[in-house]
Amino acid sequence: MKVKLVKNILEANDRIAEENRKIFDEHGIFVINMMSAPGAGKTTLLEKTIRALKDTARIGVIEGDIATTRDAERIEATGIPVVQINTNGACHLDGNMIREAMDDLPLSAIDLLIIENVGNLVCPAEFKVGEDAKVMLLSVAEGDDKPLKYPLMFSEASLLLINKIDLIPHTNFNMAKVKKECMGINSMLDIIEVSAMTGQGMDKWHNWLQQKFAL
Amino acid sequence: MKVKLVKNILEANDRIAEENRKIFDEHGIFVINMMSAPGAGKTTLLEKTIRALKDTARIGVIEGDIATTRDAERIEATGIPVVQINTNGACHLDGNMIREAMDDLPLSAIDLLIIENVGNLVCPAEFKVGEDAKVMLLSVAEGDDKPLKYPLMFSEASLLLINKIDLIPHTNFNMAKVKKECMGINSMLDIIEVSAMTGQGMDKWHNWLQQKFAL
Repeated sequence: MKVKLVKNILEANDRIAEENRKIFDEHGIFVINMMSAPGAGKTTLLEKTIRALKDTARIGVIEGDIATTRDAERIEATGIPVVQINTNGACHLDGNMIREAMDDLPLSAIDLLIIENVGNLVCPAEFKVGEDAKVMLLSVAEGDDKPLKYPLMFSEASLLLINKIDLIPHTNFNMAKVKKECMGINSMLDIIEVSAMTGQGMDKWHNWLQQKFAL
Repeated sequence: MKVKLVKNILEANDRIAEENRKIFDEHGIFVINMMSAPGAGKTTLLEKTIRALKDTARIGVIEGDIATTRDAERIEATGIPVVQINTNGACHLDGNMIREAMDDLPLSAIDLLIIENVGNLVCPAEFKVGEDAKVMLLSVAEGDDKPLKYPLMFSEASLLLINKIDLIPHTNFNMAKVKKECMGINSMLDIIEVSAMTGQGMDKWHNWLQQKFAL
């Protein structure tokens, strides 16, 4: 009974996500659903990426948070259109939330829409929102045991950004082990090592983005 | 309708948690529900705590994970009783899971039961499991903006362990800001700074534990 209900919720969400995707496609918008555990550095990475690419692409952002508008304020300071969704306790974004938020964005003036999901390594991976690709961040400070412990997000993602690599010397993070375990879960996964803080590897991530949405 | 359903689920869970609590009380067991984002260091901290206290207290552990038995294997190596719960995708432990797991523990031979929840800063805070106290970990690598962004867990916790303080020099973590924002959410919250890796502050956490369950 409970399982059936969850299945119905997911199927209903898939339909809405499909409709969102159609609307985004009509406007020629490439959509990224960005996911990670809390504090992996999504917003800092986004700030840097927007500042690096905003002269060559029209970028928009939807910010998902349980509470506060802090992240949206940080993105707004970069001068691009941003909409904040407060989920009021819900642990992930869903298709319906994105459907409502998109009305507040100038869709005809956006080429690349980045949706920053709620910080959570579990639930967001289950809910499509109408994205073209899921990009996940893993901070090296989270440890190298995450792929097998949270396999769904790693299997759903098209790209894994391993962030905060400047902290590697201060941790026991084993990069080779993580990459090997990721390949076991999702052999199509692209992996790029970055430090949003120092800028290391960010050009590779930007190249990945530019190739995908073909500026 | 959806809200009502969620309310019913939470109420049913509260009843089961209450029954669990009664069983734990009958056996004189002090129960900690340990929660954090993925990779905040719960298992490493637990390993160190068990090794430090196991000669003075009879400790048992219930390990919650989406998948794998990695954490339970690490705890088992310390020589104390441990039960693994695999939630098969569910993003939190609930009362019923603990009800089933406790049958596999020697309850009469345990004084302190530590339940390590699924790594998730959101959902576990909503589900009681029969604990006496909720202890949450925040890794400094997650950043200093978490209390206001994930208020429920901070408001539910009795103790916040701010872990990985050895990384502070390599981050822009503002300890005073975090503590101030925590107090705004939960003025009764105890806060202890630790590094499970270097051992710094661990004696304070162990003293807190020992005072609470009065060895």
